[in-house]
Amino acid sequence: MKLEGNVVVAQGGGPTAVINQSVVGVVLEARKYPLIKKVYGAIKGVSGIINEDFIDLTQETTHNLEQVASMPSAALSSTRDKPDKQYCREIFNALKAYNVRYFFYIGGNDSSDTLRIVKEYAQQEDYEFRVVHIPKTIDNDLMLNDHTPGYGSAAKFVSQAFMGANMDNRSLPGVYIGVVMGRHAGFLTAAAAAGRQYDDDGPHLVYVPERAFDVDRFISDVKAVHDKFGRCVIAVSEGIQDEEGNPIITKLVEDVEKDAHGNVQLSGTGALGDLLGDIIRDRLNIKRVRSDTFGYLQRSFFGCVSDVDQREAREVGEKGVQYAMWEDRDGSVTIHRIGDYAVDYKFSRLEEVAGKTRYMPDEFINNAGNDVTPAFFDYVGPLLGSGQRRIYRFRAPAVPKLSPK
Amino acid sequence: MKLEGNVVVAQGGGPTAVINQSVVGVVLEARKYPLIKKVYGAIKGVSGIINEDFIDLTQETTHNLEQVASMPSAALSSTRDKPDKQYCREIFNALKAYNVRYFFYIGGNDSSDTLRIVKEYAQQEDYEFRVVHIPKTIDNDLMLNDHTPGYGSAAKFVSQAFMGANMDNRSLPGVYIGVVMGRHAGFLTAAAAAGRQYDDDGPHLVYVPERAFDVDRFISDVKAVHDKFGRCVIAVSEGIQDEEGNPIITKLVEDVEKDAHGNVQLSGTGALGDLLGDIIRDRLNIKRVRSDTFGYLQRSFFGCVSDVDQREAREVGEKGVQYAMWEDRDGSVTIHRIGDYAVDYKFSRLEEVAGKTRYMPDEFINNAGNDVTPAFFDYVGPLLGSGQRRIYRFRAPAVPKLSPK
Repeated sequence: MKLEGNVVVAQGGGPTAVINQSVVGVVLEARKYPLIKKVYGAIKGVSGIINEDFIDLTQETTHNLEQVASMPSAALSSTRDKPDKQYCREIFNALKAYNVRYFFYIGGNDSSDTLRIVKEYAQQEDYEFRVVHIPKTIDNDLMLNDHTPGYGSAAKFVSQAFMGANMDNRSLPGVYIGVVMGRHAGFLTAAAAAGRQYDDDGPHLVYVPERAFDVDRFISDVKAVHDKFGRCVIAVSEGIQDEEGNPIITKLVEDVEKDAHGNVQLSGTGALGDLLGDIIRDRLNIKRVRSDTFGYLQRSFFGCVSDVDQREAREVGEKGVQYAMWEDRDGSVTIHRIGDYAVDYKFSRLEEVAGKTRYMPDEFINNAGNDVTPAFFDYVGPLLGSGQRRIYRFRAPAVPKLSPK
Repeated sequence: MKLEGNVVVAQGGGPTAVINQSVVGVVLEARKYPLIKKVYGAIKGVSGIINEDFIDLTQETTHNLEQVASMPSAALSSTRDKPDKQYCREIFNALKAYNVRYFFYIGGNDSSDTLRIVKEYAQQEDYEFRVVHIPKTIDNDLMLNDHTPGYGSAAKFVSQAFMGANMDNRSLPGVYIGVVMGRHAGFLTAAAAAGRQYDDDGPHLVYVPERAFDVDRFISDVKAVHDKFGRCVIAVSEGIQDEEGNPIITKLVEDVEKDAHGNVQLSGTGALGDLLGDIIRDRLNIKRVRSDTFGYLQRSFFGCVSDVDQREAREVGEKGVQYAMWEDRDGSVTIHRIGDYAVDYKFSRLEEVAGKTRYMPDEFINNAGNDVTPAFFDYVGPLLGSGQRRIYRFRAPAVPKLSPK
């Protein structure tokens, strides 16, 4: 049974460099089916649905869709609202009022959970209705997926940032700390190491949330690297936590800000990097210690995108519509790796993705818990796309000293 | 009179995305002259000279020189040493010992001042010797120069960072503060505005060190923008100061770190952004306030470079050698703008550049002191190079509301 009616597409949670590719994938594909009358875009995610704030993407030019597809950030705007039951009922009521039969929600595991609840209301009212979750998150923490759209481009940014920061640190030695996004998953922080090439290239230390962060071990790690190379570049996840699972950043900030999902605010402050820098200065007596918190540039810098990520983000949107039209059921589009390297898509059950978090596999983290493994490089390499940069150094011979000391 | 002997090229101060272009410009040009026997690169700037730490770039392949030219950071490594008289004497002694007759030093106004002092020792000893200063600084604060190599690429990075941050902020509204490098000159912070396109595009407020920063005015500026757009993107220079010329950051950090030049450490900490964010949260009761400090990515991000900047950085190196060989005098290579847009180079006296700081002209700053002017856009546009990005938005019509509120 095919449903005649309208489509709504919405974006949720943090934007990425390629989330608009997925919107455009949905729109271009949905406009091909005669059963689909209108393709609406909800402004500001689910909040735009309950406020009946829609634009009619049926009337958007194909050319402009293609231009917007290449923009970072959420072109439909997004929301941090975490719908409770009442909110989900209002979403459903609004969708029904507009004769929406297909709801495509591009987001992370929270978005997927919202779809699941909205669908429950549709079932209660016997309203024929399809919900499709389209994956997106730079944190790369969705279950089932080999990786998620948005991750590859953010990983490319983080990798190139550390390639440059490492060369900068080699030019003017000292300790450099780069704090990376990713919440409770270490995938994005791990990408900091993807551009290493020479033996002494940093980041020399990589700390992910999947391993308890111990300050004493950290200090002895930094000392060992600094003794060896006379400098040290460190990648730290914003989400590092202690043995008890308390985020290191909560030890610093008295009034920790939480969002509507109950998540601690980890981004948009330089506090964690500054704290770690102070500890190194105090305990190791190293003078030049610098910390950068990469912040929102990781997901929205204009002009750093992985072409592989772009293509896949487009396809998950397109596949979402195909699954809804041809398979006649709800689900979440998931990405699966084939060999080295291709992908295939599956239409998985919402429950398998909703509200769960995927973490870095153990095989990607070294035994000491302060670096990644070759298995991680095999994993991340293809996701960075084409045009990978290489490092070149002078290799001219040293001039013999006239007055050897 | 042409001098037969060796060349030393060195890099000083903070690296840039194009400083290696200048090294390679010097090396390739110097290797053409039969009078020049060896082209040495000093490792770690002037400290490499007194330690006799040289590599023989006469033996570097042209192909590898070209590869290294495109790398960010200082491939010969740099130093923050500020030579005093004794240090300058040691520099001179070492150069003389290696029969160096041409010394090319790529750096900012401190580097230029070092050259001036080293030359004094050469004159005292009647040693025939040429010193040439090659300009470099992302701060764009060298006298005489229309702009300096390194600025265009850093400006491109800052511009693209704010284009993305603005779109991100539009996706998830709130207040966003981006703290930009540049020390006491506002040129780099001003570049934050170069990518604005739509009427509501940020940064909506731009604060440069050339205008005293007043917290009350700042708060009322932010409130006005936030009332109008429901969001606010702010570019702030790391070097903003109060009426008395005290850096705002010194109000925060108890033990302010100073480098060997007596300069306060302005970079490598998120403190300023976090402070301004806290003030906005407290006084305007806006919940979502985020601050990013762009940090070292501005000068060393791998893969964001202005082709115009690249070309000019190469040419100032080449011109430096030409001036030294054909004009037979000391000086600083300076860049001068012709029309819209070409450049010419001059060989200026060291004294005109050494130890002085150029600031943003008044005509680049609006009357309220919280934005740039159209004159600044005319200035900065060509420096960003080719491939300027454009912003695209959906322009689909709004769908009429079924239940107007």
